[in-house]
Amino acid sequence: MRDVLPDEMRELRAIMARLREAFERAGYGEVRTPSMEYEDVLRRGDASVAGAGYRLFDEHGEVLVLRSDMTIPVARLVASRYPDAEPPLRFSYFALAYRAVEARSGRPREFLQAGIELIGVPTPEGEAEVVGLMLAGLEDAGLKRHRVGIGDGSLYRTLLDELAVGEADRAALLESLTRRDLVGLDVRIDRLGVRGPAADLLLELPRLRGGPEVLDRLERGPAAAAGERLKGCYELLVERGVGDRVIFDLGLVRELGYYTGAVFELYDPAVGFALGGGGRYDDLLGRFGRSLPACGIALDIQRAHVAQAGEERLQ
Amino acid sequence: MRDVLPDEMRELRAIMARLREAFERAGYGEVRTPSMEYEDVLRRGDASVAGAGYRLFDEHGEVLVLRSDMTIPVARLVASRYPDAEPPLRFSYFALAYRAVEARSGRPREFLQAGIELIGVPTPEGEAEVVGLMLAGLEDAGLKRHRVGIGDGSLYRTLLDELAVGEADRAALLESLTRRDLVGLDVRIDRLGVRGPAADLLLELPRLRGGPEVLDRLERGPAAAAGERLKGCYELLVERGVGDRVIFDLGLVRELGYYTGAVFELYDPAVGFALGGGGRYDDLLGRFGRSLPACGIALDIQRAHVAQAGEERLQ
Repeated sequence: MRDVLPDEMRELRAIMARLREAFERAGYGEVRTPSMEYEDVLRRGDASVAGAGYRLFDEHGEVLVLRSDMTIPVARLVASRYPDAEPPLRFSYFALAYRAVEARSGRPREFLQAGIELIGVPTPEGEAEVVGLMLAGLEDAGLKRHRVGIGDGSLYRTLLDELAVGEADRAALLESLTRRDLVGLDVRIDRLGVRGPAADLLLELPRLRGGPEVLDRLERGPAAAAGERLKGCYELLVERGVGDRVIFDLGLVRELGYYTGAVFELYDPAVGFALGGGGRYDDLLGRFGRSLPACGIALDIQRAHVAQAGEERLQ
Repeated sequence: MRDVLPDEMRELRAIMARLREAFERAGYGEVRTPSMEYEDVLRRGDASVAGAGYRLFDEHGEVLVLRSDMTIPVARLVASRYPDAEPPLRFSYFALAYRAVEARSGRPREFLQAGIELIGVPTPEGEAEVVGLMLAGLEDAGLKRHRVGIGDGSLYRTLLDELAVGEADRAALLESLTRRDLVGLDVRIDRLGVRGPAADLLLELPRLRGGPEVLDRLERGPAAAAGERLKGCYELLVERGVGDRVIFDLGLVRELGYYTGAVFELYDPAVGFALGGGGRYDDLLGRFGRSLPACGIALDIQRAHVAQAGEERLQ
């Protein structure tokens, strides 16, 4: 993060105030957690975070890491501070997250996030609530052309299980999928010698992007259950009046390892990167001692500001 | 810092909103700087910060430190982003600061600060403006019994210069003063064999605490100039209607090395620690390339919250 001067700060504050009002109205209480978590806490949440962030040492020589997102800290907080509270629980945050960056990547070391987490709703109502609320909050904040991409992180796992693909091949396939490298994906699947509807669907997934009609491709196949859930989520988003902002993107793979179902990414045509994202993480809270399904979504405030400024130039 | 849950967060937000309104009304534009600064930037501001904070390494192996206050980052920002702007310049911030803590000290690693910096006002009007604004902001935020202690960090230096005390003895004396160790101070001054009005005043300083009448002791002595400035500041605070909140405390020594004149500490009877503090730092900006006098004051929001909650219990 660079220095922010008063004119920009006033605009960032206005965006945060609109989002906070929207979250508060919907019953999401704001929480704050320390910037640093013990590395073993973060590792419990997602093994891949180990070594990815800024590491420090506490007074006893234990490793602290500057948090790279708020989902794991909120999961820890829910398990430790709300061990018996009746779900659903709703939390929001406005917080800095940190990422160790590569030299000259131009990527910021820290970014200001706004996000919500919904704990204890196992059905597509959960996804629809957090996605619908974030889309409405962005509209309150002055964005007009923002969209959400929705995929399902469990799709690949289901298909790879179906095809009995081993660990090593799995990582390589997922890597091709993440990079949307269709040729590489083709080659790898071919090399595995797998055939049938699951293999066909796996190959096709990165191309399945568009309106709810892309979900038809999942019907009666190995990913029918995931398709049903996504369709349910879509119908609820239509009811919330934001159906036209949804783009299904079955090739969407989010980096973080804790997602177990639907995954989301927020876009705006004024910004070249995703504004934010999230998903369903039904296994995460259990790792901290309170097993509850959950989903959430986070936004990069400075990117949202660029998008909002872009909208204003259009007027 | 520990986790903050929604009820407390709502109260912290309300305090911050009142302070932000007060700062904004007075023309203090909010700025934000990165959580991490290069160690050589911090060291330029105050040599003693080296090694005191949390250290990290950037992609090139350079040392980054989590900032321990916002005054040095704002000084850097003013020099780099406002090289030609006509003073006075007024900035505010709401930001986390970090401090490496000793084992089991119970002190938090990070704390949420609100503060203001006034750049380019060399006269006591500067001190009176920042102190008066912070006192008014705290009143807006619901505090009633808060006070400000005002001393002068240059008093000791003036007296020690007058007495021609060498570097090593100086550090030991200052250490006794900081701990308000009157017996130790007595012994050290005696051992130095210094005599006269400057030695008498040095011995007396830690006991000079109270209303504006304590400033009379500085008249016509080696610290007359500092006394005049403090009296000027007091008169301006009386005009601002906050004279009854001022406690002169000529024994006040603030930890940070960059203060060159008046120093402040904020108190409330509901809290056992200072709520915050500040002072005049006329040499700091010059180290970053824009030589301007300046003063500022910062507040620990969570301590202010404890004080405010204490007021409410009294009602």
